[in-house]
Amino acid sequence: MNDMGQAAVSADKAPRTERGRRTVRKLLEAAAQEFGARGFHEAAITGITGRAGVALGTFYTYFESKEELFRALVRDMSHAVRQHVAEAVRGAGDRIAAERIGLAAFIAFTRQHPELYRIIEEAQFVAEDVYREHYRTFAAGYARNLAAARARGEISEGPDELRAWALIGMSVFLGMRYGIWDEDMSPAEVADRAIDLVSEGLRAR
Amino acid sequence: MNDMGQAAVSADKAPRTERGRRTVRKLLEAAAQEFGARGFHEAAITGITGRAGVALGTFYTYFESKEELFRALVRDMSHAVRQHVAEAVRGAGDRIAAERIGLAAFIAFTRQHPELYRIIEEAQFVAEDVYREHYRTFAAGYARNLAAARARGEISEGPDELRAWALIGMSVFLGMRYGIWDEDMSPAEVADRAIDLVSEGLRAR
Repeated sequence: MNDMGQAAVSADKAPRTERGRRTVRKLLEAAAQEFGARGFHEAAITGITGRAGVALGTFYTYFESKEELFRALVRDMSHAVRQHVAEAVRGAGDRIAAERIGLAAFIAFTRQHPELYRIIEEAQFVAEDVYREHYRTFAAGYARNLAAARARGEISEGPDELRAWALIGMSVFLGMRYGIWDEDMSPAEVADRAIDLVSEGLRAR
Repeated sequence: MNDMGQAAVSADKAPRTERGRRTVRKLLEAAAQEFGARGFHEAAITGITGRAGVALGTFYTYFESKEELFRALVRDMSHAVRQHVAEAVRGAGDRIAAERIGLAAFIAFTRQHPELYRIIEEAQFVAEDVYREHYRTFAAGYARNLAAARARGEISEGPDELRAWALIGMSVFLGMRYGIWDEDMSPAEVADRAIDLVSEGLRAR
């Protein structure tokens, strides 16, 4: 989890003090537990404030509703997962190496934070605009990285945006299958095998 | 949609007559509209029977609850989408050609049946076992096709199951982005570009 508490809440309710930011951070962490364990419909604001050790009135200082907190949480998680992957790949030798390290980091992250997976997926049905924003932002950044790597001659020519969506879909499904459902392979093994496909392709040579 | 009405309902409620099978088929088609438009939580059994032109009592002849019908619908759609892709790729020259034709068929199918996408995704939260069954069945069949293609020397050596999950994830996200969200590219164009990546890989040569 990151420290973007300030950006997560609506502008007029944004915390102005360090203490306020800590409270929002506590509410976001408690919300990740509550929504992850119970789903949006079953989750209760009192369940979240109870987990956070925060009074119900304090909740309403920062959020207008359960849905508003859910939206803030999805944005927060979206930022956290992109930041986690970006930090992992910093210093990678080239784009293929970055793909491998980034995928291993993503799968490890889903394994550590299985609630992230459920919450982002559930956003499709609770706050679809935030769900789309998450993947569009992810894909736009990914496409920029692919374009830069093409310019450096590290990867072949090809359509950056479409490749970004294909690679994100691959990561999300490998994260679901090998990160959340089963742990029969380490994140590094999954990444090695998947990036061999991405780098070399299926064609027999 | 396919004709598996009989298999979709629980064994003791399976229709025994042609007329019964037609009624179950009508209920499944009405359920696809109702769940697709309103989501599981907002959907009503009376909305489904109204769309199907079937009496409420008749609903209970075949299904015990809204959830039981939803589960039957996900299984039915799972079968329909796999059958649609399998028929499209029949007679493809080799595995790379089959990948291209299958992806184009899948994207075209999501564009014709956007409700399919929503319903299968929502199954994660309504009937997670059926959701997992859908993707595990899909991946198992895909892995068998890849293994057979490897044996014929049409594709390179590599891990069939992991490749199947990677390719399914890619298809699902390309279907979401280019089939459901935007229609800025034809299914054939998306498939050509994506399968170029799958066939040749990212590595600069």
